[in-house]
Amino acid sequence: MKSSLLILTIVLTAAAKAFAADPLPSWNDTAAKQAIVQFVERVTKEGSPDFVPLEDRIATFDNDGTLWCEQPMYVQLAFALDRVKALADKHPEWKTRQPFQAVLENDLPALMKAGEKGLVELIMATHAGMTATEFEHTVLNWLTSAKHPRFHHPYTECVYQPMLELLAYLRGQGFKTYIVSGGGVEFMRPWAEKVYGIPPEQVIGSSIKTKYELRDGQPVFVRLPEINFIDDKAGKPIGIHQFIGRKPIMAFGNSDGDYEMLEYVTTSSKPGFGLIVHHTDPEREYAYDRQSPIGRLDRALTDAPQRGWTVVDMKADWKQIFPPKK
Amino acid sequence: MKSSLLILTIVLTAAAKAFAADPLPSWNDTAAKQAIVQFVERVTKEGSPDFVPLEDRIATFDNDGTLWCEQPMYVQLAFALDRVKALADKHPEWKTRQPFQAVLENDLPALMKAGEKGLVELIMATHAGMTATEFEHTVLNWLTSAKHPRFHHPYTECVYQPMLELLAYLRGQGFKTYIVSGGGVEFMRPWAEKVYGIPPEQVIGSSIKTKYELRDGQPVFVRLPEINFIDDKAGKPIGIHQFIGRKPIMAFGNSDGDYEMLEYVTTSSKPGFGLIVHHTDPEREYAYDRQSPIGRLDRALTDAPQRGWTVVDMKADWKQIFPPKK
Repeated sequence: MKSSLLILTIVLTAAAKAFAADPLPSWNDTAAKQAIVQFVERVTKEGSPDFVPLEDRIATFDNDGTLWCEQPMYVQLAFALDRVKALADKHPEWKTRQPFQAVLENDLPALMKAGEKGLVELIMATHAGMTATEFEHTVLNWLTSAKHPRFHHPYTECVYQPMLELLAYLRGQGFKTYIVSGGGVEFMRPWAEKVYGIPPEQVIGSSIKTKYELRDGQPVFVRLPEINFIDDKAGKPIGIHQFIGRKPIMAFGNSDGDYEMLEYVTTSSKPGFGLIVHHTDPEREYAYDRQSPIGRLDRALTDAPQRGWTVVDMKADWKQIFPPKK
Repeated sequence: MKSSLLILTIVLTAAAKAFAADPLPSWNDTAAKQAIVQFVERVTKEGSPDFVPLEDRIATFDNDGTLWCEQPMYVQLAFALDRVKALADKHPEWKTRQPFQAVLENDLPALMKAGEKGLVELIMATHAGMTATEFEHTVLNWLTSAKHPRFHHPYTECVYQPMLELLAYLRGQGFKTYIVSGGGVEFMRPWAEKVYGIPPEQVIGSSIKTKYELRDGQPVFVRLPEINFIDDKAGKPIGIHQFIGRKPIMAFGNSDGDYEMLEYVTTSSKPGFGLIVHHTDPEREYAYDRQSPIGRLDRALTDAPQRGWTVVDMKADWKQIFPPKK
C-alpha cells in the first residue's frame, strides 16, 4: 500500500514537472519554440541583466492569421457579406447597386472590382447606424451560427491552439497580453475574453466614430459611418502608443501589416522579441505568403533574418493547429 | 513578561483593526465617506445581489480639480505658458504675434481675448513638433522645477490626499482605477504612475495625432499639430468606450465637463456610483463652482440630488487637503 502510494506520488510529481517544463505542448521542440522560451526566461529571471519588471511585460498579438484563421477571407468580411444578405430586404436598392449587388449575387469578380472603396461602403452599411450594444449582439449572434466554409466549425474554434498556449504561458509569466489588429475593435471585443482570455480593454483595433446620446433615458453609443482609426501598418505602433503608452517587449504577427509593430518592438537597446507566423501548411490549414491578397507576407519575410525575427513554420513547428474538438 | 506580550498583541490587533476599518483616514465621517464605503461594500460582498465581479470593477477619475489642484489655472496651461517663454528666443516673431505676445508680456486680458483659438495655438506651438520621448522629458523636467504659485510646492504635491487614499482603497478592493481627463494624455502619463499609482495604459485623455517613423534607425512618434481626440463632456464616455470597452461602476469628477461620464456610469439598472468634488474651501484650497471659468460646476451641481450623485464638500468632508509635507 505504502509503496504504491509512493509510486503514485512519483508519477504525479513527474507528470507535474513535465507539465511545468512544457508550457507549449502543441509546439514541436524546434528553434521557434526554443527562441520563445529562451527570451521569456531571459526577461523574467530576477537578477538577469535583461530582467524586465512586471509592469513592462507587455506582449502584442495581431489577430487575423496570427491568432485565428484569416482564409479564405477575413472573418469580419464574411460577417459583412452575411449582414448585407440579412439586411437586403430592407434595402431593395442594393439589388442594382454595387458593391451590394455583387454580394447578393455572390459575384466575386464584381466584388473585387469594387476595391477598397467598395469594401469601406460594405463595412459602413453593415457596421454603422446601430448602437454599440446592438452591434455587439449582432456579432455574437452571427458567431453562434456562422461556420468556416472549409473546416465547418464556428470561427471562434478556428483559432490556433499553439497560440492559445502561448497566450496562457506569457500570462503565467506575468505578461499582459494585448490584441493589436487591423480588424474592428468592436467586432473582436465581444468574444476575445472568452476565446483568448483577453479583456476588452486589452483589445486594440480599427474603429469607426461613435456618438454618445440618451435613448429612452439610457446612454448609448451610436456607431457613425466615419472611420476613426485604422490600426494597420504604421497605425499599429501608433495604436500601441495611444492605448498602452509604453513599448511592448514581445510582438506577434503574420503579415506585412505587422511590419512596423515588429520593428517598433525589436528596434531598441532593450530586449525585444518579434515573431511571424508563416502559413506553410495547406493540408491542415493554408499555405500563403508573398502573393496572397489576404495576409500578404513579403517584406517582413524577407527582412526577418536580419531583423532577428523568429519565423514559425506552421507545418514543421506546430503539432496541432486547432484546439481539440469539443 | 507574558502579560505584557499579551497586551502588546491586543494593542497591535486593535490598531490593525482600526486601520482596516478606516481606509480613508483623511475623510471626515460624513455622508460622502459613508456613501463611498457603503457602495464599495455592496458591490464587493460575495453573495450580495449587487455583487460585481473583479473584471467589472472599474473606477474612472477626472484629473484636474478631482485628483489635483486646477486653480488658479490648469497645470497644463501653466506648462504651456512656461514653454512659450522658454522657446521665445527661437521664435522672435512671437514678440509681436498674439497670443504669444500676451504670454511673453504676462498680459492676461490679451490672452483671454485670444479665446479657445488662441489656446489651441499655444498648445500646438508647445506640445507638437517634437518626439513623444522628447515631450515626456520636457514635462518631467518642468515638473521638477515648476511650483504652484500659491502653495509653493511642485504641482505633483498639490494632489488631494483624500483622493489618493480613495484610489488605494478602491485598488485594494479589486478595482482598476483609470484617469479620464480633458488634459493631454501625454502630459499625464509620465508621472501618473508615480503620483497616483495609475499606469500609462489606464490614463485616458485628450490627444494630438502622432506619426510613426525611424530617426537614426530608432522608432519615434512625432507629435503633429493636429487634434486627435478631445476627452471632455460627451468625449469622456466615448473615450471610456473606446479605451476600456466596458462601463465603469464608479466615476469621480468635479465639473460640468464630467457630467456625461457621471451620467453614463450612473444611468443603468446595474449599480453605479457618481461623485463630485465641490471646491468649498478658500482657506485650505479654493472655492469655486457655477461662475468659474476653470472647472465650472453648474449643471452637474444642480442635478446631483436627482441623479443620486454624492457631492463632496471639501471644507466639511476632508480633514486634510494635500499630502503631509515630505
